[in-house]
Amino acid sequence: MDIVNLSEKFSLFSDHWHPRIVGELNGQHVKLAKFSGQFVWHKHDHEDELFYVVKGRFRMEFREKAVDLSEGEFIIVPRGVEHCPVADEEVWVMLFEPVNTLNTGDAGGVLTKDRLDFI
Amino acid sequence: MDIVNLSEKFSLFSDHWHPRIVGELNGQHVKLAKFSGQFVWHKHDHEDELFYVVKGRFRMEFREKAVDLSEGEFIIVPRGVEHCPVADEEVWVMLFEPVNTLNTGDAGGVLTKDRLDFI
Repeated sequence: MDIVNLSEKFSLFSDHWHPRIVGELNGQHVKLAKFSGQFVWHKHDHEDELFYVVKGRFRMEFREKAVDLSEGEFIIVPRGVEHCPVADEEVWVMLFEPVNTLNTGDAGGVLTKDRLDFI
Repeated sequence: MDIVNLSEKFSLFSDHWHPRIVGELNGQHVKLAKFSGQFVWHKHDHEDELFYVVKGRFRMEFREKAVDLSEGEFIIVPRGVEHCPVADEEVWVMLFEPVNTLNTGDAGGVLTKDRLDFI
């Protein structure tokens, strides 16, 4: 039952599109990630995914629209929905999603991180 | 897939110890609540519970210790662990827990809110 300070945790890494796990509960992980640039289009067939902006802003692109998220805002992307996060500048994001959710979903590729560290 | 702005949502209610639901994913609810004063000692037999401080600070008391949480910090209280939140001043908290988690857990009583609104 340790307190997790988000700023302290974010200070422990600097690479982009590489989530770290900072909590686990009820089969879900709490992850932190820094985004910069464009990610890869993908979807998760079995997992809904929450993105909460801790610092900065980014755009979540969908096939039919795009939405801008700022600090203090979140969006839930339902399973099966293709999405692609784009960050014109670095943004710090907290994610809630089921344990073992793969960052690149069904897309795979070089940005896939299949072994995440608990920090 | 609406954007949820936490400040906007918190502006919609003012009562204490009365969580509102602002998101649902993977069988979990995202809730917002304002705490002030002392809650009731309780535990949840089957649910882990995450408390994230959006604004202000509060103290989570356990039987063996107490911890202070400030803005930008969270704690996960595992199932079965007795706890009691205490806020000397009003604090805004985001919770993440399974659908149907009861705010007062096994304690019941007048502070129980068994029908939460989705705002």
